[in-house]
Amino acid sequence: MNGRTRVVVVGAGFGGLATAKGLEDAPVDVTIVDRHNFHTFQPLLYQVATSGLNPADVAYPVRGIFQRQANVRFRRAGVTAVDWDAGTLALSQGEDIPFDRLVVSAGATVNDFGIPGVAEHGFPLYVLPDAVRLRNHILGRFEAADADPSVVDDGGLTFVVVGGGPTGVEVAGALAELIEKVLDRDFRGSRVDVRRAHVVLVEMVDSLLPPFHPSSQHHARTTLMRRGVEVRTGTSVAEVTGTRVRLEGGDEIPCHTLVWAAGVKAVPLAAALDAPTGPGGRVSVEPDLRLPGHPEAFVIGDMAAIDDGEGGLLPGVAQVAMQGGHHVADLITREAVGEGDVHEPFRYRDKGSMATIGRRAAVAELPGGLRLSGTPAWISWLGLHLLYLMGFRNRVSVFVNWAWNYLTWDRGARLILGSGEGDTSLPGEDEDDEAQTSA
Amino acid sequence: MNGRTRVVVVGAGFGGLATAKGLEDAPVDVTIVDRHNFHTFQPLLYQVATSGLNPADVAYPVRGIFQRQANVRFRRAGVTAVDWDAGTLALSQGEDIPFDRLVVSAGATVNDFGIPGVAEHGFPLYVLPDAVRLRNHILGRFEAADADPSVVDDGGLTFVVVGGGPTGVEVAGALAELIEKVLDRDFRGSRVDVRRAHVVLVEMVDSLLPPFHPSSQHHARTTLMRRGVEVRTGTSVAEVTGTRVRLEGGDEIPCHTLVWAAGVKAVPLAAALDAPTGPGGRVSVEPDLRLPGHPEAFVIGDMAAIDDGEGGLLPGVAQVAMQGGHHVADLITREAVGEGDVHEPFRYRDKGSMATIGRRAAVAELPGGLRLSGTPAWISWLGLHLLYLMGFRNRVSVFVNWAWNYLTWDRGARLILGSGEGDTSLPGEDEDDEAQTSA
Repeated sequence: MNGRTRVVVVGAGFGGLATAKGLEDAPVDVTIVDRHNFHTFQPLLYQVATSGLNPADVAYPVRGIFQRQANVRFRRAGVTAVDWDAGTLALSQGEDIPFDRLVVSAGATVNDFGIPGVAEHGFPLYVLPDAVRLRNHILGRFEAADADPSVVDDGGLTFVVVGGGPTGVEVAGALAELIEKVLDRDFRGSRVDVRRAHVVLVEMVDSLLPPFHPSSQHHARTTLMRRGVEVRTGTSVAEVTGTRVRLEGGDEIPCHTLVWAAGVKAVPLAAALDAPTGPGGRVSVEPDLRLPGHPEAFVIGDMAAIDDGEGGLLPGVAQVAMQGGHHVADLITREAVGEGDVHEPFRYRDKGSMATIGRRAAVAELPGGLRLSGTPAWISWLGLHLLYLMGFRNRVSVFVNWAWNYLTWDRGARLILGSGEGDTSLPGEDEDDEAQTSA
Repeated sequence: MNGRTRVVVVGAGFGGLATAKGLEDAPVDVTIVDRHNFHTFQPLLYQVATSGLNPADVAYPVRGIFQRQANVRFRRAGVTAVDWDAGTLALSQGEDIPFDRLVVSAGATVNDFGIPGVAEHGFPLYVLPDAVRLRNHILGRFEAADADPSVVDDGGLTFVVVGGGPTGVEVAGALAELIEKVLDRDFRGSRVDVRRAHVVLVEMVDSLLPPFHPSSQHHARTTLMRRGVEVRTGTSVAEVTGTRVRLEGGDEIPCHTLVWAAGVKAVPLAAALDAPTGPGGRVSVEPDLRLPGHPEAFVIGDMAAIDDGEGGLLPGVAQVAMQGGHHVADLITREAVGEGDVHEPFRYRDKGSMATIGRRAAVAELPGGLRLSGTPAWISWLGLHLLYLMGFRNRVSVFVNWAWNYLTWDRGARLILGSGEGDTSLPGEDEDDEAQTSA
C-alpha cells in the first residue's frame, strides 16, 4: 500500500459514477472498471429503441466524465472473480488488480423467469446495445413487411411488450407514436399498410405501473388505449417463439417482436461475490450496504437487495443507485481520513417516480402526495431528464432532437445501423447481422 | 405498363438521390433500392471514424427524404442481377421488379490492388459501418494499450493511413488531432503514454493530394507534419498483417491499424450489368451516361468510368455523381413527356475541390484558379458541408458537435459501440465482436 486507500468500483452506471464523484476530495485512488467505455443514461434507452434519440445522445465516455478528477482511473474490462484473501479483482484480460475497498455496482441482466423462448426471442432493454438492436429490429419489421406484405397476417407488425412497469409503459407508448406519426408517413404509398401494426402491452398483475397511485395507473392505461395500444393486464406469458407469444390460459398472439421489460436479475458476477442472495439473485447487504462477511466491500444499485424498511426491497432505479453511491463514498472517505470503522446505515430518500407515456402524456408522483399527469407531468419529465443527462453536448443534442421530433412529428434517428450491421445486411436478416462481419 | 414510366434507381447515394429528386415533376414512378435504409453523407465519414461526429449525424433515412415526393418509393434490398430481356431487376429477397428505365448508382468498394493482407486487415472508409468499425478499433487500441502498455512497442498505437488523396489526408489529420487533443487528456494518469501514438501517411506518388496545385499540396504536407503526422510519399505498401505493414523496398512498420484510403473499385454488381468495364472495374458509359447496348439503362457516380474529355476519367466525388443524376433525370423526363430518344451528352462542371487537414486548416481550389488555404479554406469547407448536409436536424446536430469540439477540444462521440458490440465486448476483442451476438 502506498498510504492512499485503493478503491475499485465495478460498473460505470449511476451507482458507480456517484461513488467515484463522491470520492473526489478523499485521499483515495479510484479505479472504475466497466466493459463499456461509456456511461449509459438508462432512463432514455426506450427512446433510442423507438428512434427518438440516437445512441450517442444517451451515452457519455467515462474517461471524459473524469478528465478533471485526478484521483480516478478507468479500465475498460470485464470482471471475472474476486480473491478475498489476496484482496484482488480478476479482470477479463487476465490481470488482477488490488483493492482496499471494493464497490460493486454492476447492475442487472434480463430475468426471463424461466419462460421458454424468452431468452432466445425476447428483446431486453437494459444496456445500450439492447436498444440499438431493438431499434434495428423494429424498423426491419416494417422493411420486411414492405418486401412481403403477407407477413403482416402472420404478426410481422405485431409488437408485444411484456411488463407494465415504467419501461414497458414507455416503450409501448413511444412505439405506438412512432408507428402512427412517423412510419405511417414513411410507408405511405408503399405496399405495407402501417395502420395494421399493433402494439400489445402485457402485465401480470391487474394494473399498470403497480407502485403508482390508482389515479396515475388509470391515466396511463386510458392514455395508452387512446393511442391504440392494446392493454392486457392480469395475464402473463407462457411461451415464446420467433413468431408467436402464447399467454397463460392458451391465447396465442402472432407476433415477430417481443420486448421483454418484465424484470431483471443480478448479473452473474453476484454469484462470484460468494454472498447470500435475495430475490432475482440480488445480493443481500448489511444496512450500511456492506457485503456480509466482507466489510471492505459494498454492493449498490440494481445488484443489491436493500431492505426498504417496510418488508420489501428498494426498487432498481437510478435514485437508489445514486444515493447508494453517495452513501458508500461518504463511508469510505470517513474511514480514509482516519475515523475508524463507520457503519452508518443507508437511508433512502424517495424523491418520487415518473413514467412518460408519450407526447404530452406522463405521470409523476412526488413526495408528500403530490401527483401530476398529462402535460404538466410530461414537462417535468422532460426538464428533469435534461437536467440529469450527462454533459452539455448531450443535453443540447437531446434538446434539439426532442424539439425537432415535437415540432415535426419526425424521428431523425430511424437508422438501421450498428449492432453488427455490415454491407450485406438486408430486410429480415437483422438478427443474422449480429453474426456477420462487415469486412 | 400503366402508362407511366417505371424508373428503378439502384443506390441511395449522391447520384441516386439526385436522380430521384430530378424526377419530382416527371410523369414517372421511381423506386429507389438500397441495402441501407439511409443515405450517407460520405464526405464526413472520416469525422465519424475519428469520433468527431456521431453516425446519425451523417446519415438520413431515405424514406424521410422522400416523404413529400409522391412519385418515389423505397425498397430496402440488395440487387443480385438484371434480366435485360424481361426488363427486371432481381432483389436479394428473391423478388423481380420491372423497370422501363434503370439508373445504376451503386457506388464502389475498396480496391486492395491485390496487395496481400489488405482485405483481411485494412480498414476501408467508404460506407457508414466502415466508419463505425474504424472508430471502435481506434478507441479500442488505446484501451488495449492501457490494459497492456507493452503493445505500444509492438505498434499498438501506430496508425498507418494509406492513400494521399483527400480521404487519407483528412483521416490522418483528424486522427493526429484526436490523439493530441482528446485522448491525451482522456488517458492522463493512466498506464499508457498517448504521446507515443504515431500516425503515418503513405502515398505512392511523390506528393499528397495529386490533382491539387503544388502550393495546396505543400500546405497539406507541412500542416500534417507540423501536427505530428509522418508523411511518406513515393512509397507503397507491399504486404500487411494484423501487426505489421511492409513497404516496397523492405521497410517494415509495426502497426495494429491500417486505414485503407488508397482507392476504390466498382461493386460486384458492375459485372452483373454485362457491360464493358474500364479501370477499377468501373463501367464504361456512352457520352450521355447510357450503358452501351442497353439504352434503357444509365450508370452514374463512382460506378461509372466517365471520360473527362482530356484522356482521363472524372473523379469519384459527390459532384460528379450529383450532376450525373441531374443529367439522367433530365433525359428520362424528356423521354417520358414524349420527346423521343434524347442523347444529349453529359457535361461536368467542375465546382472545385476541397480537403480539410484539421482545426483551421484546409485547402480549397475553385474554378478560375482561385485557391484558399488555412483558416479561410477551413471556414469555406465547414459552411459548404453544413449546406449540403441533408436535413435540418442533422445540420443542427453537426453544428453543435463542431462548435462543441472547437470550443472544448472535446469529442463527445468517442463511444465504442455498434458494429456488433454486445455485452461481452472488451479491449482487444473488437474484431471478434463482429461475430458476437449481444443477447
